[in-house]
Amino acid sequence: MTRPINIALVHYPVLSRDGSLVTTSITNLDIHDIARSAHTYGVQGYYLVHPVAAQRELASRVLKHWTEGSGAERIPDRRPPMESVRVVTSLDEATEDVSARFGQTAEVWVTSAQPMHDAITHQAAAGQLREPGGPVLLVLGTGWGLAPSVIDGADRRLLPIVSPRADGYNHLSVRAAAAILLDRLLAGSPET
Amino acid sequence: MTRPINIALVHYPVLSRDGSLVTTSITNLDIHDIARSAHTYGVQGYYLVHPVAAQRELASRVLKHWTEGSGAERIPDRRPPMESVRVVTSLDEATEDVSARFGQTAEVWVTSAQPMHDAITHQAAAGQLREPGGPVLLVLGTGWGLAPSVIDGADRRLLPIVSPRADGYNHLSVRAAAAILLDRLLAGSPET
Repeated sequence: MTRPINIALVHYPVLSRDGSLVTTSITNLDIHDIARSAHTYGVQGYYLVHPVAAQRELASRVLKHWTEGSGAERIPDRRPPMESVRVVTSLDEATEDVSARFGQTAEVWVTSAQPMHDAITHQAAAGQLREPGGPVLLVLGTGWGLAPSVIDGADRRLLPIVSPRADGYNHLSVRAAAAILLDRLLAGSPET
Repeated sequence: MTRPINIALVHYPVLSRDGSLVTTSITNLDIHDIARSAHTYGVQGYYLVHPVAAQRELASRVLKHWTEGSGAERIPDRRPPMESVRVVTSLDEATEDVSARFGQTAEVWVTSAQPMHDAITHQAAAGQLREPGGPVLLVLGTGWGLAPSVIDGADRRLLPIVSPRADGYNHLSVRAAAAILLDRLLAGSPET
């Protein structure tokens, strides 16, 4: 039995290419792709974090189309992952919601393509998820990654996904990084 | 030293939701996401396979924007993965091109979300990539997966990515499936 795991995609506070603090836009495919990966790997809630009301409303309209509207009829397979998506204002709100849903304080685990202090391996993180404990909120950043304040305030920091290339090129999309992380943390099938 | 690995995204012949043979459209994000994942994991060529000239021209215009146009200036990190993309008419053309580039007949390895006969584990496939041998073309389907003719004609079939869910829900996007497969096959291997 693993600990309850949830995932958050943060649009603020994140970094821009030049390292300043910015707010990114919600994109349709970040909703779909990460919801599908999350649901496939047994994630219990996918939080879209955005401080701007108009962006949250846009996301909610997309979700409604796939959970209640014509999308749900046309592609019923899309409904369960979309039902697990929750649109919130801040990472704190996401963390409090996870804690409330599971009746125990959620641990915040952050990810980055950059090295972070005190980071643990994905293997160690997978081991922690298999041991008894409270719920976990795995946090991914959009743009050029989570702001330092989010990284410093987290309970756990996960090592970056390392490129096997000699030149170290490492520019995965957040959708690809989410899929790889969920596979490394949650794939329970030793036969593959 | 691993074998040279290439990847192909097939838009025909693939299956529709109801199991009939169809041609799907090239999507912008399939180009970007899979090119970024492929380049990060040291893949040496990413083949976009489409039988319709207008679709190939569309893809070529997108690629040109990111390799020579303003996209290359604005986000230079996107240039190397986009330079590795090759637009071809058929899977046979892709296979012949890989064979010609590496001077040895390419092996075609196919993937599917459905069980296939004589399929090998991802661990076994990763082991084969680390041993001496000719180039490999890893083939992914769009739509509801590769046509049976492609699966039956392949040199190797890889087991599906298995969901750890009790209900077996397994609807990864092709972008997520590509990322997970590349990570399982190539993470930790030295650059070829």
